[in-house]
Amino acid sequence: MTNTMIPGYIYDEPALPASPVTEADLAELRASVLFGEEDEAALRRAGEVLAGQVEDVLDVWYGFVGANPHLLAHFADEDGKPLQDYLARVRVRFGQWIVDTCNRPYDARWLAYADELGRRHTAAAKNRADAARSTASVPLRHLIALIYPITATVRPFLAATGATEEEVDAMHEAWRKTVIMQVALWSRAYAPEQW
Amino acid sequence: MTNTMIPGYIYDEPALPASPVTEADLAELRASVLFGEEDEAALRRAGEVLAGQVEDVLDVWYGFVGANPHLLAHFADEDGKPLQDYLARVRVRFGQWIVDTCNRPYDARWLAYADELGRRHTAAAKNRADAARSTASVPLRHLIALIYPITATVRPFLAATGATEEEVDAMHEAWRKTVIMQVALWSRAYAPEQW
Repeated sequence: MTNTMIPGYIYDEPALPASPVTEADLAELRASVLFGEEDEAALRRAGEVLAGQVEDVLDVWYGFVGANPHLLAHFADEDGKPLQDYLARVRVRFGQWIVDTCNRPYDARWLAYADELGRRHTAAAKNRADAARSTASVPLRHLIALIYPITATVRPFLAATGATEEEVDAMHEAWRKTVIMQVALWSRAYAPEQW
Repeated sequence: MTNTMIPGYIYDEPALPASPVTEADLAELRASVLFGEEDEAALRRAGEVLAGQVEDVLDVWYGFVGANPHLLAHFADEDGKPLQDYLARVRVRFGQWIVDTCNRPYDARWLAYADELGRRHTAAAKNRADAARSTASVPLRHLIALIYPITATVRPFLAATGATEEEVDAMHEAWRKTVIMQVALWSRAYAPEQW
């Protein structure tokens, strides 16, 4: 599936608004999470390792969401009934997010799409890309808390294709850093004045 | 030094306002970060391991802050001059936070103090406990990004007293979970309506 075939995926669309987050802001965030060139290289390797396992990673994450009613609620209608079409459409973009996280340059367009991903968790834009009738927003606390499962669960997949323990460590640390950095970026949509 | 001797440390003060965060909210957060009884036990062990190393941990963290102007700015005056008294007063409470994180029950009072710690990073209460003339608030993005160094740097200290690799792993994962959970709690002060 090429990017342009993913419904609601606007990473490469010329109309994607620029992020107000500057390159200097990003440099500070990179410094705060100790993200360097060796992490970029480790993410490229992670992208190769994860390429054939994206659906398996998503199975774990969707299993986790499905097992937690307070998370599944945000993919459900007002009666709590899970919206299968919404779950499925987000899932394809979630898989692409794994690929993008490993392979895209962290440049102005990456910042622009990070801003869009933040908005899509808030009342400003949740449900919109999928015309879903679900909750108005994902509470900020859940977005932050999910750093743990989204980082802890990826290690077995990073180790699945025979990388050395040292290589797995490098890929895993780079993954932790980028997820924390991206949640920090996404949080702007929740508190732009205090971001 | 007993708790009551730490300036600005109000964990046990009867006047500490209750948190609006409920036990049910906390149960959801615990589920999101996979925090269970085995993590509580691992944190108790971590408390024993770290007890004699708190100043060494703080040396690493303060070294990191001091090496990053965008972080040090929040301990500095408007001319960018670090406020040594403010740094020193916060440091004692930061050390006590390590101890509390490992040893306190995560109950209503813990939630109340977490709420206070969130406020103390925002314009609502930053500087107040120390009468410091520093920045009005710590931006939300920095609070989230610091999850990485505050979790990654603790491992050598957890391993320093001869625990097995498996025990160190257990303590480290419990530490990651609680730090992420606490940052999620602290974020309420930044976006109470969308928290």
